Amino acid sequence: MKVNVNGEQQDYRTVWMEGSEVCMIDQPKLPHRFEIYRSKDYRETTDAIKNMIVRGAPAIGATAAYGMVQAALEFSGNDMEEFSNLIHEAAATLTSARPTAYDLFHAVDEIESKLRKAKSVSEALELARKAAKEYADKSAERCKKIGEAGEKFIKENSRILTHCNAGALACVDYGTALSPIRLAKYNGKEPFVFVDETRPRCQGSRLTSWELIQEEIDHSIIVDNAAGHFMQKGEIDIVIVGADRIAKNGDIANKIGTYEKAVLAKENGIPFYVAAPESTFDRRCATGADIAIEERGEDEVLSMFGIDENGNPVSIKISPGNSKARNPAFDVTPAKYITGIITENGILTYSHD
Amino acid sequence: MKVNVNGEQQDYRTVWMEGSEVCMIDQPKLPHRFEIYRSKDYRETTDAIKNMIVRGAPAIGATAAYGMVQAALEFSGNDMEEFSNLIHEAAATLTSARPTAYDLFHAVDEIESKLRKAKSVSEALELARKAAKEYADKSAERCKKIGEAGEKFIKENSRILTHCNAGALACVDYGTALSPIRLAKYNGKEPFVFVDETRPRCQGSRLTSWELIQEEIDHSIIVDNAAGHFMQKGEIDIVIVGADRIAKNGDIANKIGTYEKAVLAKENGIPFYVAAPESTFDRRCATGADIAIEERGEDEVLSMFGIDENGNPVSIKISPGNSKARNPAFDVTPAKYITGIITENGILTYSHD
Repeated sequence: MKVNVNGEQQDYRTVWMEGSEVCMIDQPKLPHRFEIYRSKDYRETTDAIKNMIVRGAPAIGATAAYGMVQAALEFSGNDMEEFSNLIHEAAATLTSARPTAYDLFHAVDEIESKLRKAKSVSEALELARKAAKEYADKSAERCKKIGEAGEKFIKENSRILTHCNAGALACVDYGTALSPIRLAKYNGKEPFVFVDETRPRCQGSRLTSWELIQEEIDHSIIVDNAAGHFMQKGEIDIVIVGADRIAKNGDIANKIGTYEKAVLAKENGIPFYVAAPESTFDRRCATGADIAIEERGEDEVLSMFGIDENGNPVSIKISPGNSKARNPAFDVTPAKYITGIITENGILTYSHD
Repeated sequence: MKVNVNGEQQDYRTVWMEGSEVCMIDQPKLPHRFEIYRSKDYRETTDAIKNMIVRGAPAIGATAAYGMVQAALEFSGNDMEEFSNLIHEAAATLTSARPTAYDLFHAVDEIESKLRKAKSVSEALELARKAAKEYADKSAERCKKIGEAGEKFIKENSRILTHCNAGALACVDYGTALSPIRLAKYNGKEPFVFVDETRPRCQGSRLTSWELIQEEIDHSIIVDNAAGHFMQKGEIDIVIVGADRIAKNGDIANKIGTYEKAVLAKENGIPFYVAAPESTFDRRCATGADIAIEERGEDEVLSMFGIDENGNPVSIKISPGNSKARNPAFDVTPAKYITGIITENGILTYSHD
């Protein structure tokens, strides 16, 4: 992704490795400050995942893979059994950071299994470095392919609605829903994006708008309430969102509010696309009804987090002291509202009965 | 409406008069502090309307009517022409407070025309007091009748979704959308309310939840993104909202997001009611397409207003410094999504072709 650093566009990934340091874009500081967080060892990398310095399943996976390299680098002896024990401990520590993130387990597992094939510590280290880099590269490559597959749905000056942040910041690079938009921009199509702010955590207004500013893609932030109005007025040509999980029948789970936008898109005859790598498909879920919806704490709804006039982080209360809230983090959009699912291997469609 | 003052439920209106003072619930201080704002003269009352100490068309109308009484009280002479001039000046001042509020003009006009019939200053004063009180009483009575007409749609333990604040705080008493819910509570039906927070100004989480807490009506605040999810899950039985304007064909304009909820209600087979006095009907608008939609400043979307941990008012930035926003304040819900319009004279339905 491009990042504007002191007036100059530079290429960045969300996470990478320099020497023994895992470097990542410090996401809680966005959109107000662009800083690189540098983690010195796998424990610090675990904390960075836990504290959401990095978020988004693919980005977390790559970060953990690099964390495994840090663990291997820590070892100074030659005993492969001792080495294995250390690696196993690091794997357990890293996977404890976000216990429900599937990519985290997958990445750590992949690196650990490669290390097991090594005959010496130095060979293991070499293998780990290579495997972690490959993991990140493949992740970025998949997102790029999603972009290439989806870009054809974006016409010259298309006006696109997106929800939440399915951007490069959630992945290693390119993003999922934002990847076709990025590539459309690179190809000179000058897309315009309506950015749902995406309450309660405002990943749209905080992160998606930040990414679009870096790429100089024209856009407006809107409150989630306004998406329907702009669809009705004919100001939105296409909707592209990400997905957290996809069931066998094509139902998808994504950030709360996705279902609302999908119903409104159908009602207004607007194509609604989901962009996600094939790893998002959960073959154990027959339909969306099998996907459990996490309800998070009330505070995200009752308060709002941001920065004050002096640039300091602050939380403000926007409801009575003793009120209650419900806070489902995701919702399920049935396949019948989805025009197609854009994957790294092309477009999937489902029969809509 | 009931207000819990030091643990005791007391009856309040949004605005009333005590001696020469116009008293009103200080709404910008809600939901964090319940305070009565006391205006000493019609100029201060004008400022109170301008600064939105009181908001909502019917409440503004009654406040201005009382402001006219304050103007009459200021006069010390006996000359009816001088008196008329003062009254006319006060009318011009009061109606300048919120130039687009129809009720404001209507109320001031009504009082001024009554004053013109008086033969002496003392008679005029008497007439003004009576007319202002009547204006407020009739306004409250209309809302009560809306409640009585709408309450029959609420069953025992009904779960109701509402949007924005169409409550007593926007009227003199009872409210429009909240009036049927209040009466259902008084009749022992124990309704449960899902309160859309209603970004960008959060009238749902700030005002509606405050009113419901006062009346001890069980409820949860939700982000606007979550309404569709709860409808899909079968957790919402009925939707009741207010209206800012109603066209001849039954299309309505209301707070941004209303259209989204209406489409979702229809999709999920949930009855969608609009509660509004007949004064909301604008016979000059044939359809919703004739209703102009105000776009407000970007800052309401790019920032959030609330109070910090020490109870001080604060505004926080929730988007990049140089991002843009669009902020339509209202949207139009076509009649085909509306089950019925609840007025003080009964239920109106429109054919849905």
